[in-house]
Amino acid sequence: MLILSIDTSTLTCSIAVNDGEALLGQQVINTKTTHSQKLLPCIKSLLDNLNISLRDIQLIAIAKGPGSFTGLRIGMATAKGLAYGLKIPIVGVSSLEALAYSSNVFGSLVVPIFNARRNQVYGAIYEYDQNRYIEKLTPKSIQLNDLLDEIEKVGKTAVFLGDYLQSFEEQIKEKLGNKGRYVLPQNITPRASGVGYLAYNKFNKAGGDDLASLDVEYLRLAEAQRKLLQCSRQS
Amino acid sequence: MLILSIDTSTLTCSIAVNDGEALLGQQVINTKTTHSQKLLPCIKSLLDNLNISLRDIQLIAIAKGPGSFTGLRIGMATAKGLAYGLKIPIVGVSSLEALAYSSNVFGSLVVPIFNARRNQVYGAIYEYDQNRYIEKLTPKSIQLNDLLDEIEKVGKTAVFLGDYLQSFEEQIKEKLGNKGRYVLPQNITPRASGVGYLAYNKFNKAGGDDLASLDVEYLRLAEAQRKLLQCSRQS
Repeated sequence: MLILSIDTSTLTCSIAVNDGEALLGQQVINTKTTHSQKLLPCIKSLLDNLNISLRDIQLIAIAKGPGSFTGLRIGMATAKGLAYGLKIPIVGVSSLEALAYSSNVFGSLVVPIFNARRNQVYGAIYEYDQNRYIEKLTPKSIQLNDLLDEIEKVGKTAVFLGDYLQSFEEQIKEKLGNKGRYVLPQNITPRASGVGYLAYNKFNKAGGDDLASLDVEYLRLAEAQRKLLQCSRQS
Repeated sequence: MLILSIDTSTLTCSIAVNDGEALLGQQVINTKTTHSQKLLPCIKSLLDNLNISLRDIQLIAIAKGPGSFTGLRIGMATAKGLAYGLKIPIVGVSSLEALAYSSNVFGSLVVPIFNARRNQVYGAIYEYDQNRYIEKLTPKSIQLNDLLDEIEKVGKTAVFLGDYLQSFEEQIKEKLGNKGRYVLPQNITPRASGVGYLAYNKFNKAGGDDLASLDVEYLRLAEAQRKLLQCSRQS
């Protein structure tokens, strides 16, 4: 089964084509241009290089969040458009869980984190067990310090990955010392192959998601919604 | 420093652009077409998507072996042509060491292996220590069983990766039981970002390689050379 996977959760745009669990091709573009500029050329060039037509694709896999609101919105809209246009199923998976699946971390906790601004991160805690990453802390928008408290409670070495990792390293080191580790800099960014792997397994168990109701998972209110809520409370 | 990295050691063609240690972009094409068809379109489309011109590249990094003789030859010829044409330095690194650097494996041995045919593998053993993968067994063409003996001697859990991993899993399981582990199927293939990371660090310490004398490292004789040697011994 040929799967086209899209991950636009962070500045990094990543596209993959899997045949079942096996990776056929992948492209990662980590530049500051917007996803609306990067995403379609990225899909087109990968398919061209693989000599695969869009019509050969049988499943669309999308990282549905958390992450950059605008990035997720562009990714989800494109994924839904492709699934609708090609009349094929779509499956959404957690961006953080997909990142854990691209980590190859065994025997330690794996902690994917994205910058959520306003002094928070989007983070989750997973642990590998028999071909699966078991969720120890569900993806959430959280103060980094509170996330580090959760890791301390489990008491194991934790391997961190995710864009912007450098900006958190000092705080992690202060709290966890040598129990906090980081993947090498060329391996920190999201890769869509993890999205495809997860989506394929989810599809085999439960089928596709409902195209109309599938939505991004921001895990917190957008700035505009937050302010609207504040105003309505004050009035 | 912008680095263009090429890995054609196996059927997988992988290209990456790093800015120093940070990954800007990467493409992986894992199809059966030859590297002479895949490589240049892969480089062109990645640079186009990154909006980077070939003239911006400051270092060429190449996986010099071991691996597929024809694949390595095409990769090395292209890399040398680019370095010569652009008048920029070139650095060659071990294909197996680069694969270890894309693994994120900490706390276990990491064992990259490629199919070397004639009942052999190209394999090496590494162990992570303070941002480096220390070589425990130097890359060589070896019977898989002898490689597994070397791993048993060290007595630690070993994580395997590399194309064609599936064909070796039964033998590994028989010998190492649950002390042998495998990265998930979407993570087994070479990725050029590891080549770029290693080459950048090597360049900073020792400068570029000599363009004329840099060569592929087959680690064993080509079939034709082996037969020639046999004939000359018999005559």
